[in-house]
Amino acid sequence: MKEFNLIQRYFTPASLAPDTLLGVGDDAAIIQPPAHQHLAVCVDTLVAGVHFPKDTHPRDIGHKALAVNLSDLAAMAATPRWATLALTLPEHDDTWLTAFADGFHTLAREHGVDLIGGDTTRGPLTITVQVMGHVPPDQALRRDGARPGDHILVTSTLGDAALALAQWDHPNPAPTLRARLTRPTPRIAAGHILRGRAHAGIDISDGLVQDLGHVLKASGMGATLQAGALPLSEAFRHAMGDGTNWQYPLAGGDDYELLFTLGEADVEPIREQLAGQGCPATVIGRIEAEPGLRVLGPDGAPLTLEQGGYSHFGN
Amino acid sequence: MKEFNLIQRYFTPASLAPDTLLGVGDDAAIIQPPAHQHLAVCVDTLVAGVHFPKDTHPRDIGHKALAVNLSDLAAMAATPRWATLALTLPEHDDTWLTAFADGFHTLAREHGVDLIGGDTTRGPLTITVQVMGHVPPDQALRRDGARPGDHILVTSTLGDAALALAQWDHPNPAPTLRARLTRPTPRIAAGHILRGRAHAGIDISDGLVQDLGHVLKASGMGATLQAGALPLSEAFRHAMGDGTNWQYPLAGGDDYELLFTLGEADVEPIREQLAGQGCPATVIGRIEAEPGLRVLGPDGAPLTLEQGGYSHFGN
Repeated sequence: MKEFNLIQRYFTPASLAPDTLLGVGDDAAIIQPPAHQHLAVCVDTLVAGVHFPKDTHPRDIGHKALAVNLSDLAAMAATPRWATLALTLPEHDDTWLTAFADGFHTLAREHGVDLIGGDTTRGPLTITVQVMGHVPPDQALRRDGARPGDHILVTSTLGDAALALAQWDHPNPAPTLRARLTRPTPRIAAGHILRGRAHAGIDISDGLVQDLGHVLKASGMGATLQAGALPLSEAFRHAMGDGTNWQYPLAGGDDYELLFTLGEADVEPIREQLAGQGCPATVIGRIEAEPGLRVLGPDGAPLTLEQGGYSHFGN
Repeated sequence: MKEFNLIQRYFTPASLAPDTLLGVGDDAAIIQPPAHQHLAVCVDTLVAGVHFPKDTHPRDIGHKALAVNLSDLAAMAATPRWATLALTLPEHDDTWLTAFADGFHTLAREHGVDLIGGDTTRGPLTITVQVMGHVPPDQALRRDGARPGDHILVTSTLGDAALALAQWDHPNPAPTLRARLTRPTPRIAAGHILRGRAHAGIDISDGLVQDLGHVLKASGMGATLQAGALPLSEAFRHAMGDGTNWQYPLAGGDDYELLFTLGEADVEPIREQLAGQGCPATVIGRIEAEPGLRVLGPDGAPLTLEQGGYSHFGN
């Protein structure tokens, strides 16, 4: 952690919280994790042209690189605190770096995250962010706790980002859809509400079906989804007109909404609490002991998907 | 942190220590940092063709990707415990991945490091590793504590890796030099010995002059180095024959040795302790209140360098 002039120049936060003892500029940062809490740690890489269109605005790339990681912490019900940034850049472009750093820092400040370290290298645009947050012992929201009869819920709406990506080169893209793709909202507050109450949870980054599949596999369960119950935005419905392409909300990915399972008695109280935080949640199916995922269309007949979700290496 | 089949298949450790509560496979890992300790966190990216020759053996790349980060923890006097891995690969190559993972895990096991998370993406070969370790409060080895009159020491020998890189395409490269480039040894035990005793420290990754420069800048100090005192290996002396190219040990980089400063009374006791751990250290100069770095040749005359060290963006 030495190649640090660029990180120091563009990314050093204006101030650091007291539990960040040493930030950017030494061989390593020194932090003081809170007593009696566990730490949640995750890392995600964004590659230009793979995870975002190459002409995405650098401010949006800075936002998204942090947001996708905060979404993973939200899906563990953790409180974000620290981040590191490894940035591989084709060239030193002041305008690009200033906008990227602004997008990153604006979201970081919003969630009280200190950037504590990083590395800059030259090469094709690739951004790896690691975030660390804390969570009370035994209250992390894991994938492996879904139980038969649990209701399956998701926050906000699905499919908007995938539709925005499909319309990326449209001359008049719908701005609300595009914002869902370029500036996802990590559901940190929702994660906190689910602490100790949801049986299992995950964030939807690779598509509902694939991510629910991870929960089912980890929990040894199956499920039935009701496509007709999927929460769709006004902009999405408007763009779809008479027919809905279920591929977007079921398998599109990039939603960064939380999927979680609740016992029956918790469904309404939790939905009310989430709505109170401006984050409505919708019941979209049930967990079942019988393995496999069954997706039913609005008419009650099974739906078949062209593709289950995104995979870099086809496995 | 979802695209995880490759990480799970190749990189899940055989066993995890009790303070790794949840490893690879959920949205985030959960760890239990030790009570009453601080955490040291660092991240380093290696780009093929920039940080290592493209035909480097994948086992060596796996070793080095972790080793350069452990070296940063050593330079903070920390004890390594956890790592994450973000791997961007041009293709899924089982032979390559198996060898890379073996190099990574062998070094990880040696230092008690658990791999707790990661991400795999498709693109030009780029490896970002983040490591976390613990260090007792106020015993981290920082860059900003050098004092006038301090002796400047380095562990082991300098310049071997840079010479090996210069001879990379040689038909008969010296194996001991090449091993210094491809399989650097993080000086974790040496860092522990320096805890609470060295006034300042850093690891030498970008070249002695540049890295000492970071210590001088952070400490607001200057220094004089004696080139004739630089520790050179037998293999290095042999390859150099009648004349030494000072560029290698002074500015070559990739040594991953520790540079540190000690008050006079500590020099011999610490050197003895380090030698007892198989890691000899050599006095190579003194810290001075006068700013600037003065390098004297073996004849006592000032040496001038062609280049101060490696920088990706020339700043």
